[in-house]
Amino acid sequence: MIFIGERINGGFKDIQRAIKEKDKSIIQRWAKIQTEAGANYIDVNMGAVSNKVDDFIWMIETVQETVETPISIDSNKPIFVEKAIKVCKHPPIINSTTADKEKLDQFIPMAVEHNAGLIGLCMDKKGAPQDVNRRVELGATIFSEAVEKGLSEDRIFLDPVTMPLKFLQVQARNLIEAVHQFTLLSSPPPHIIVGLSNISSKAKEMKLINRIFLVMCIEAGLDAAICDVTDEELVNSAITAEVVLNKHIYSDSYIKAYKDSRSK
Amino acid sequence: MIFIGERINGGFKDIQRAIKEKDKSIIQRWAKIQTEAGANYIDVNMGAVSNKVDDFIWMIETVQETVETPISIDSNKPIFVEKAIKVCKHPPIINSTTADKEKLDQFIPMAVEHNAGLIGLCMDKKGAPQDVNRRVELGATIFSEAVEKGLSEDRIFLDPVTMPLKFLQVQARNLIEAVHQFTLLSSPPPHIIVGLSNISSKAKEMKLINRIFLVMCIEAGLDAAICDVTDEELVNSAITAEVVLNKHIYSDSYIKAYKDSRSK
Repeated sequence: MIFIGERINGGFKDIQRAIKEKDKSIIQRWAKIQTEAGANYIDVNMGAVSNKVDDFIWMIETVQETVETPISIDSNKPIFVEKAIKVCKHPPIINSTTADKEKLDQFIPMAVEHNAGLIGLCMDKKGAPQDVNRRVELGATIFSEAVEKGLSEDRIFLDPVTMPLKFLQVQARNLIEAVHQFTLLSSPPPHIIVGLSNISSKAKEMKLINRIFLVMCIEAGLDAAICDVTDEELVNSAITAEVVLNKHIYSDSYIKAYKDSRSK
Repeated sequence: MIFIGERINGGFKDIQRAIKEKDKSIIQRWAKIQTEAGANYIDVNMGAVSNKVDDFIWMIETVQETVETPISIDSNKPIFVEKAIKVCKHPPIINSTTADKEKLDQFIPMAVEHNAGLIGLCMDKKGAPQDVNRRVELGATIFSEAVEKGLSEDRIFLDPVTMPLKFLQVQARNLIEAVHQFTLLSSPPPHIIVGLSNISSKAKEMKLINRIFLVMCIEAGLDAAICDVTDEELVNSAITAEVVLNKHIYSDSYIKAYKDSRSK
């Protein structure tokens, strides 16, 4: 499982304040906590706090001063991504492109040049699809464009665009079916990822819904998530699902074994 | 979700003692607890405690004195099932037949006559299959025999035969794939069931493994389980998985709504 820690996001009040006041301690605290919890990447998202690229670069450098965990550059602005990718100490993930041609034409070459991962949201200017077929069509467009332009399959992450269960209940099943169909695009398949917390947006049973939806997606073929990596029950559920699928060898201490392998 | 409460089983020491001493209170206590927890059926299994059919009938009647929940007659002996089915106040489930012809020839007519459900274990005299195809083949045999002899599709429960993750890790994935393929046998598909606790046999993280495996099976199409219905986290996980699949309408209080609908 590839875990991307979601917490350094200007949508959270403490991060918002940290950006405004240039308070490194809050950002570095979350970088450490998420790394210790096993995050493979630390997502960095400025939200609507600032529109200055320098603030975004400051956030990334602040994270990199304290942990060696690679960065997930969370911006849909090519100019931000272009500057950010140059300061990354380890190959990052670009989070994210859409299936629109002008986005793909800018983001794919950046990913290729810097050996970065690229998250492809299966949506375009018309918005996010409401059905399975259109999601798969857009996923296939992103995947084939990326491969054609030289990005290796294992750097491509398709995201079916998670929607809130509370407001679009029927979409949850479509999302899982899209995950399943993404696995058929190539062999081995691309990585498949969700922005997990969206599924439980405004719901009362947030953590329960997050972990059940994640397990169902893993069953369908998903292998990555942007999520609350500090939610131990969520992480343990994901690991267990992967043990059921025989992706890690069972031992009575399989959870500890998995976590130990992460902290090396 | 159809929940069959597993707890009245001679494998548990308190039930063993209850049978030997003809102590109704222990059996009736578990009948009530499981009914209150939402069990649709109460499984009654004598284990190796006794080989007298009268003891088995006593167990069933003891349960029926205290709850109206239908019985899951857990015996592979046709003579036991034949006697037990006659004392059931509500249509029971027969748990279970195998795919062997002599078993099917005895159990199917009993189920038809008494409008009972029938759990079909996808195994035969040669034992339980180690691959998906053989499971599906045996499931198809049971299903087609039962339909042909007049049992309605919604009384048939196919069971892929759960094996311990600890000892046969690769089988877990096969089981889930078999569940998925059972859904393709007919439209609407037969019920699909697992004896859940087998998956975590001798494992350290029993409850975690039970609920993750159950959620994965539900994603694949399962709609019934013989399990610990008193494990609230397990039940809540199953309900949540069904909400994700749009089988129950989402509301912030969907867990309570589901449980309320059960206690009516």
